[in-house]
Amino acid sequence: MSRFFSAKYKSLTPYTPGEQPQDRQFVKLNTNESPFPPSPFAVRLAREEAGRLELYSDPDCKSLVAAAADCLGVGTDEVVFGNGSDEILGFAFAAFCDGEHPAIFADITYGFYTVFAEQNRVPYTEIPLAEDYTLRVEDYLGVRGTVFIANPNAPTGIALPKREIERIVASDPDRVVVVDEAYVDFGAESCVDLIHKYDNLLVVQTFSKSRSLAGGRLGFAVGNAELIRDLNTLRFSTNPYNVNRMTMAAGVGALRDGDYFDFCRKKIMRTRERVAAELRALGFDLTDSCANFLFARHAGIGGKALYLKLKEKGVLVRHFEKERLYDYNRITVGSDEQMDILLQAVREILGE
Amino acid sequence: MSRFFSAKYKSLTPYTPGEQPQDRQFVKLNTNESPFPPSPFAVRLAREEAGRLELYSDPDCKSLVAAAADCLGVGTDEVVFGNGSDEILGFAFAAFCDGEHPAIFADITYGFYTVFAEQNRVPYTEIPLAEDYTLRVEDYLGVRGTVFIANPNAPTGIALPKREIERIVASDPDRVVVVDEAYVDFGAESCVDLIHKYDNLLVVQTFSKSRSLAGGRLGFAVGNAELIRDLNTLRFSTNPYNVNRMTMAAGVGALRDGDYFDFCRKKIMRTRERVAAELRALGFDLTDSCANFLFARHAGIGGKALYLKLKEKGVLVRHFEKERLYDYNRITVGSDEQMDILLQAVREILGE
Repeated sequence: MSRFFSAKYKSLTPYTPGEQPQDRQFVKLNTNESPFPPSPFAVRLAREEAGRLELYSDPDCKSLVAAAADCLGVGTDEVVFGNGSDEILGFAFAAFCDGEHPAIFADITYGFYTVFAEQNRVPYTEIPLAEDYTLRVEDYLGVRGTVFIANPNAPTGIALPKREIERIVASDPDRVVVVDEAYVDFGAESCVDLIHKYDNLLVVQTFSKSRSLAGGRLGFAVGNAELIRDLNTLRFSTNPYNVNRMTMAAGVGALRDGDYFDFCRKKIMRTRERVAAELRALGFDLTDSCANFLFARHAGIGGKALYLKLKEKGVLVRHFEKERLYDYNRITVGSDEQMDILLQAVREILGE
Repeated sequence: MSRFFSAKYKSLTPYTPGEQPQDRQFVKLNTNESPFPPSPFAVRLAREEAGRLELYSDPDCKSLVAAAADCLGVGTDEVVFGNGSDEILGFAFAAFCDGEHPAIFADITYGFYTVFAEQNRVPYTEIPLAEDYTLRVEDYLGVRGTVFIANPNAPTGIALPKREIERIVASDPDRVVVVDEAYVDFGAESCVDLIHKYDNLLVVQTFSKSRSLAGGRLGFAVGNAELIRDLNTLRFSTNPYNVNRMTMAAGVGALRDGDYFDFCRKKIMRTRERVAAELRALGFDLTDSCANFLFARHAGIGGKALYLKLKEKGVLVRHFEKERLYDYNRITVGSDEQMDILLQAVREILGE
């Protein structure tokens, strides 16, 4: 830290992303990327745009907003795009949290929420999940603040039914509820259509997982037009051209190519179920994941030990140091070939 | 504004970007874009990367940082990249300004500085430029706070010599000076090599102008490793994957293609001098611009009137409502063909 760094950030601890080895020597199952390349149509549109980069991108993201509105059944004033959903989540923490409106989220959820709260210097309260990692809706009723719920949750993959989220949203119309649906396309229920019923609901999604655009950086929020306007006020006050031309084009292509989207997410769900069954047969205890990852522990080996042994064998999974997660690993659902390598490595480790 | 928008932002006025018509019906000389497409090598690398977007980009931007360090003669721990230089400038306002360290900048400069200050809720002081729009170095000596200087300045194009910037930097080692060199490649002196002499100097540059990547979104800061570490703390606390894979590749290509870079910037400088001479011959009063734009007024027609008449004729330039700028227009230096259309339109308007 330099002697110039503002005192307000002296205790800020940045988010730690999963390891990103650039040499591809690993079977990479640690950051919930898709094993499938982006839609060929998306790639074609992005490549066309690469030759036109001398011109700024459209700060209003009109083409992309129109495609998303069409795809999601919402108005063009009900969507805002970001350079990844992290940017959008950061705007939501800034816009809707302050000393009078603390951020509220589970003790076990996306690890960035605490960082967003600290970077925006807003207070936050973590509400413990139940012993089995499920979220108790009752814990969120009558609590003052802005609620953030990852649904399905990370790193457990456990999803809340839409009607349960709705109970939280409906319980207090004077409180914003942000539902982070990064993994929703792998088998959970989206709350997008509830935005027309509740003006205090914001739904955030990403193109990083089910649309194979992690490296393109694209995410969005859907909500009442006034909430979206607030997020745009922040967007235009920080980085109006936040979505580059190539990613904007890729996003349009990904939205238009619904068949490819369905193929990929359904294939990943099938692979997930197969691998979950095989891991259970090997003695693993798994949460009931509705995401593109599994969350697994084994009575015979510690979480960290398994992570390290898998890494030795060239398979990267994600281990978290946090106490309640320490026994587990989060394993991205990759291709069948990748998962077979994982399973073989696991068998070797357990059989040693 | 929704009833949920935090009171802290209720008076926030977003930045207004230049008009970005997406249909290309205009000769677009309003946002200082390059008339040249990006380097063919940059385009090729970006297109290759478009097929690999299922994987996250490297949060450490290693390939890009290495290329920039090589190109600029600095260490890899002395560079940080952003999703456009606006993102980096925003981080600098957050990191180095607070109640005890107000932001200090000219009354006439990049209009985003006031927005960055307000969005980060830090106090700021605007120091008036001299009558002829030059910056008086003396005004910046002995003033407490974090200094932001656009060099060349916008929208005037006037540059300070490096030795004058150095006087400001050297005058107070306990104060950070941020030099925003968005337009430096068009004929001004860069302060990059001073970062090894002063640990309180941060130099910000962009790929949007001289490297034809406005629509790719890429900018960076160069400075002492400790200042860069502070900016990275904020980057990893907001958006660790802020630079997407395609833009990262394009950036490497643009840096490696030094010949194309030199060709483009030199051509733009030649066109600028030709057009400046022609405008002067038509009775315009121009500042001495070292940027890829001209800043011009004419005794015979108001700035706003000229802007509107040019727009009617299909030529977009940038007019600012601010009092001291009201008589002027900022005209991007485009291709010779574009500038000939501008000059013809101006002649018609003046001859009416």
